[in-house]
Amino acid sequence: MSAPLIDKYRKLATFDWRKLKAAVEGEEHVRLKAEVVAKMKSEPIFHRDYRVLSREEQREVIHQRWKKIVEWGLFKDPYSDLENFHALVETLEAFDQGTSARLFLHGNVFGAAVKSMGTERHKDLVEKTENNQIVGAFCLTEIGHGSNTAEVQTTATFDKGELVFNSPNVGAIKCWAGNLAHSATHVVVYAQLHVGGKNEGLHGFVIQVRCPKTFKTLPGITIGDMGSKPGCWQGVENGWMEFKNHRAPLSSLLNKGCDITPDGKYVTSFKSASEKQSVSLGTLSVGRLGIIAKGMMACTFASTIAIRYSVARRQFGPEKGVENEIPVLEYPLQQYRLFPYLSAAICIRIFQKKFVEHFTEYMMRVMMGEKSEELSEFSKEVHALSSGAKPVSTWLGVESLGEARKACGGHGFLHMSRLNTLRDDNDPSQTFEGENFMILQQTSNILLGKVNNLGSIRTPMSTMSFLNSNPSKFSSWSSNPVDDVLSAYRYLTYHLLQTTSSEANKLKKSGKSSFEVRNEIQVHRAVNLSIAYTEHTMIDWVQKFITEEVDDVTLNTVLRKVLNLFSLFLLERHLATLYITGYATGGKFGEELREKLRLAVEEIKPEAMSLVDSIAPDDFVLHSALGASDGRAYDHIMEEFRKYSDEQPRWVCDLAQFLQKNSQNSKL
Amino acid sequence: MSAPLIDKYRKLATFDWRKLKAAVEGEEHVRLKAEVVAKMKSEPIFHRDYRVLSREEQREVIHQRWKKIVEWGLFKDPYSDLENFHALVETLEAFDQGTSARLFLHGNVFGAAVKSMGTERHKDLVEKTENNQIVGAFCLTEIGHGSNTAEVQTTATFDKGELVFNSPNVGAIKCWAGNLAHSATHVVVYAQLHVGGKNEGLHGFVIQVRCPKTFKTLPGITIGDMGSKPGCWQGVENGWMEFKNHRAPLSSLLNKGCDITPDGKYVTSFKSASEKQSVSLGTLSVGRLGIIAKGMMACTFASTIAIRYSVARRQFGPEKGVENEIPVLEYPLQQYRLFPYLSAAICIRIFQKKFVEHFTEYMMRVMMGEKSEELSEFSKEVHALSSGAKPVSTWLGVESLGEARKACGGHGFLHMSRLNTLRDDNDPSQTFEGENFMILQQTSNILLGKVNNLGSIRTPMSTMSFLNSNPSKFSSWSSNPVDDVLSAYRYLTYHLLQTTSSEANKLKKSGKSSFEVRNEIQVHRAVNLSIAYTEHTMIDWVQKFITEEVDDVTLNTVLRKVLNLFSLFLLERHLATLYITGYATGGKFGEELREKLRLAVEEIKPEAMSLVDSIAPDDFVLHSALGASDGRAYDHIMEEFRKYSDEQPRWVCDLAQFLQKNSQNSKL
Repeated sequence: MSAPLIDKYRKLATFDWRKLKAAVEGEEHVRLKAEVVAKMKSEPIFHRDYRVLSREEQREVIHQRWKKIVEWGLFKDPYSDLENFHALVETLEAFDQGTSARLFLHGNVFGAAVKSMGTERHKDLVEKTENNQIVGAFCLTEIGHGSNTAEVQTTATFDKGELVFNSPNVGAIKCWAGNLAHSATHVVVYAQLHVGGKNEGLHGFVIQVRCPKTFKTLPGITIGDMGSKPGCWQGVENGWMEFKNHRAPLSSLLNKGCDITPDGKYVTSFKSASEKQSVSLGTLSVGRLGIIAKGMMACTFASTIAIRYSVARRQFGPEKGVENEIPVLEYPLQQYRLFPYLSAAICIRIFQKKFVEHFTEYMMRVMMGEKSEELSEFSKEVHALSSGAKPVSTWLGVESLGEARKACGGHGFLHMSRLNTLRDDNDPSQTFEGENFMILQQTSNILLGKVNNLGSIRTPMSTMSFLNSNPSKFSSWSSNPVDDVLSAYRYLTYHLLQTTSSEANKLKKSGKSSFEVRNEIQVHRAVNLSIAYTEHTMIDWVQKFITEEVDDVTLNTVLRKVLNLFSLFLLERHLATLYITGYATGGKFGEELREKLRLAVEEIKPEAMSLVDSIAPDDFVLHSALGASDGRAYDHIMEEFRKYSDEQPRWVCDLAQFLQKNSQNSKL
Repeated sequence: MSAPLIDKYRKLATFDWRKLKAAVEGEEHVRLKAEVVAKMKSEPIFHRDYRVLSREEQREVIHQRWKKIVEWGLFKDPYSDLENFHALVETLEAFDQGTSARLFLHGNVFGAAVKSMGTERHKDLVEKTENNQIVGAFCLTEIGHGSNTAEVQTTATFDKGELVFNSPNVGAIKCWAGNLAHSATHVVVYAQLHVGGKNEGLHGFVIQVRCPKTFKTLPGITIGDMGSKPGCWQGVENGWMEFKNHRAPLSSLLNKGCDITPDGKYVTSFKSASEKQSVSLGTLSVGRLGIIAKGMMACTFASTIAIRYSVARRQFGPEKGVENEIPVLEYPLQQYRLFPYLSAAICIRIFQKKFVEHFTEYMMRVMMGEKSEELSEFSKEVHALSSGAKPVSTWLGVESLGEARKACGGHGFLHMSRLNTLRDDNDPSQTFEGENFMILQQTSNILLGKVNNLGSIRTPMSTMSFLNSNPSKFSSWSSNPVDDVLSAYRYLTYHLLQTTSSEANKLKKSGKSSFEVRNEIQVHRAVNLSIAYTEHTMIDWVQKFITEEVDDVTLNTVLRKVLNLFSLFLLERHLATLYITGYATGGKFGEELREKLRLAVEEIKPEAMSLVDSIAPDDFVLHSALGASDGRAYDHIMEEFRKYSDEQPRWVCDLAQFLQKNSQNSKL
């Protein structure tokens, strides 16, 4: 366990990791994050050890941390100070998603919903939300309805100038609402609005559910916790809520674009249910953009912890003898398992940042009141891309943590490695805002809608424009593998669009309903289509960023190596489909692609440790005995182990007696 | 939330699930397992709820359960009553791997090691082990050495008629020994034996570490716990142990084939270190056979829980309206995600059982003292196959739990679904007895050793004999897709063997050492070779079992459907490599393979629910709110939720005051 080799590996890099970090994240962002970390370090409540806390303990800790963050006053309206907001979000998300969830569910989900769907009469509530005089939760999902929210069963019935809320059956009980089980005083709740015997459809309401002094629930409302959950989500009080003739004032209706007159008439300015729904489309994408970042963060943790530990860990060598053992990072297979996720951490960050820029432009135009066909196209494109990138990113994230844990061997399984806990923490990102395969359908649906316009597709972010020309098959490799990968993706996406569409037509002609058709084209077709389109855009945007925004030659060069690996790693997974769609024939193409991939992995090796430094969160945030920046994994492990020296649990007396009894019995 | 549809799905099956269970598992095995379950149900300590227990609670519970099992007297020497032993093992492994670990680490690991490496002078200890007068642990792994056990650093030095144990550095501290942290009175420990200044290499010793009355550690020994671990392993007291001049009697040496004379001379009857090592080769395979079963069990849990829940869960439908919603099992994509793991659960069981039969024959011949070239080939073949099947099975197992969790959506993430906990429980199976990629190398090494004998390979289990003939490329599909799959695998394995071998030769010629060569041929080559060889054997053996041992036509038919899916599912993952190795050209082959796979999934649908019934453990053992056999997932979920109604944690007072303070501040 001699001195760590980590610095030796650091010296191999051809670039300055601090410069890379600034180029990718922005100097101000790096500085602001460091400020947040410094604040956290100064408060005991943010200090952690490696014990697993109970449900009760975890929730109390999160409550205390949330209070501290509110007191700091860092967390205001994101639009008033976007930079600070991003720095806080990223740091908290990396530190503990449970803590950030408590904060955002109140301000950015509950608060934003009241703001966007409410009117003047909800202004007081918006203010109270911003001043943290109340705690908000967001209740959409029901026991029986998660994905298909249009069919939620809770009812709000107009009766004598009031609204009466009911959960008509077990399936209609609200659930999964964060902050609800213990803390929420108010909730946004979705229900079918019944006025004068007619169901006017799904509407949002804001109601008080608890007394803010006693925290007792109001009459007609039962609230409870959902019990234990894995990882940091144990600390999030996801609640369920059942209504039995709960009466709320008429003003509860979030009445932007619709209202009920005091004498019980329903009025609306929306022409259709879909128009009403489209108002909230943008908001959904905000959530997805945040979840894409979760996938990035997962890849960041996985590669940081596993790559640093792979230098501390020495095992086998060219000759026998412990002095000849080499760091496991030297093994090509270990590199092949870990470096792709390192490249993913960097590339997804660049992509996501670019996406946020586009999205911000989109939202600005919406808020300026623009109503154009182009903006409606923009909306669709944002939706298609966010619905594709959220699955791609979160799958990669969870996968990376699983692979990292295994690549760290047994010690990776210790709680203090944090890898399994992080996998649990990130696991739900794959089903947030719709199970990944569910929301991928939105991407393919939008793409399939373009199939009759090939040649004249114009999308504001240009993610689909390549579909206008018939892409060519593979002929030879160019000098830039990323260009080759992009060509292959263009062919792949184009052909998957064609084959998925023609399969759909075939099924339609055979008499299937559009519902059946949509379901039957998913496997091997629509799913792959959505993924190919998304990955093409990711790679394309990262390449544009490197070309257009990174002037420093050393940084430009290393980022090209990173993207090279990321793009080949992703494309290799589509190799079979490339053959099936006829992009190439003969074994040579695939063999060469894999060779290029192995080479791309090899080229990362000297850069790996500094690339890790450029993405790794502060040790205080990383909080992993295996992944600390000093590379002294074994010292940190033993430091923790020694805390558990000579423990003697109370049942050991019972064990001693049992052995004694067995001895006596055996002598009989 | 109407009555469950599960029985409707059960009626679709073409076979009787009880008959299938008996045909696959054996009637006696099914009966004996039911007996164990009945015993467990009658003891309160085996009853569980859905709370997450603390480290301390979990360990106490496991101690109590272990006592109960010992008192039942079910657990004796496996060889004296193999059937009962298997039934107990499987039931405990399904119930809680933590409980079974406590039992087996003492009897089957510690006990077996003393028996196999010890002599007459250890007989008393063997008896005490069998009578549970002592508790044993097995200490091989050190902080710095897991995979490369030959280099463990602990020393045992002969001094004045005694052995002195030392941990020369932090890396030499023993760790991961189950039962060690609190319970072990004795351990088998591996150390470098130094006699008269000479290192005689790695040896096994058995020493006392604690007083069986006070449970205080003996002088020169420090023992501690390794802290928190995910899943059921939190309940397993994996310990670390540091030696500082601990003195033990000479009789501690497990002296089969070697000894130290009282005057300090080392004597051995082993001709070489490798001969000594080969004695323990068989024992390693026993462990692997057990771990293959863990992968099978993981697939069993995943598919049981997710498929049953997919019938309870209704979402979307051909028309709007909650009454038109269809069970999510109706979606082809959902079937595609889940059914392959159902088929894996069944096929891996059949394969593993057949492997145990072969292995038992092998062990019998070893125990009869046979020393033949054929037996040595048998040993290698058992080693190759167990080193391949352990990774294939455990990867599938962990993957299945991840996929099942996602396919169950949000509710799958609840602790009461048990899916994430089971994933944590099974996660270490991927690194037990060597990280999966590490031990896969043993398979490829053995196969590569055959490359110069192609044409005359004779292996006792015939798993490699197909390598004797040059396999042909794809020409057309036969009437039995499983035969087609096997042909493809034969081609694949043969060609991967050729290309891996020629790559190795090329690297050798370029001047690389054999250590470098071995590392550089892994990615895309040796790894795939080992997997292809293993999967071919699995499919082949299952097909033979169905053909030769299942006479009942309905059972034979449904098992063929199951194997059909399993084999196509596995082969599809090698599609790119099939193209690269030249098995087929043109997109048609791959498209048809995928079409056959989709069809194979479709054919399982009517059988799925009864197939699940045929593999599912008793509800008491399954212990999942989503997966209960009555299909009433939502009722079970709500029953649990209601236990958490109106909770008010103590910090809510603090929250109330905080909101109050914020209200006052905002008025200022």
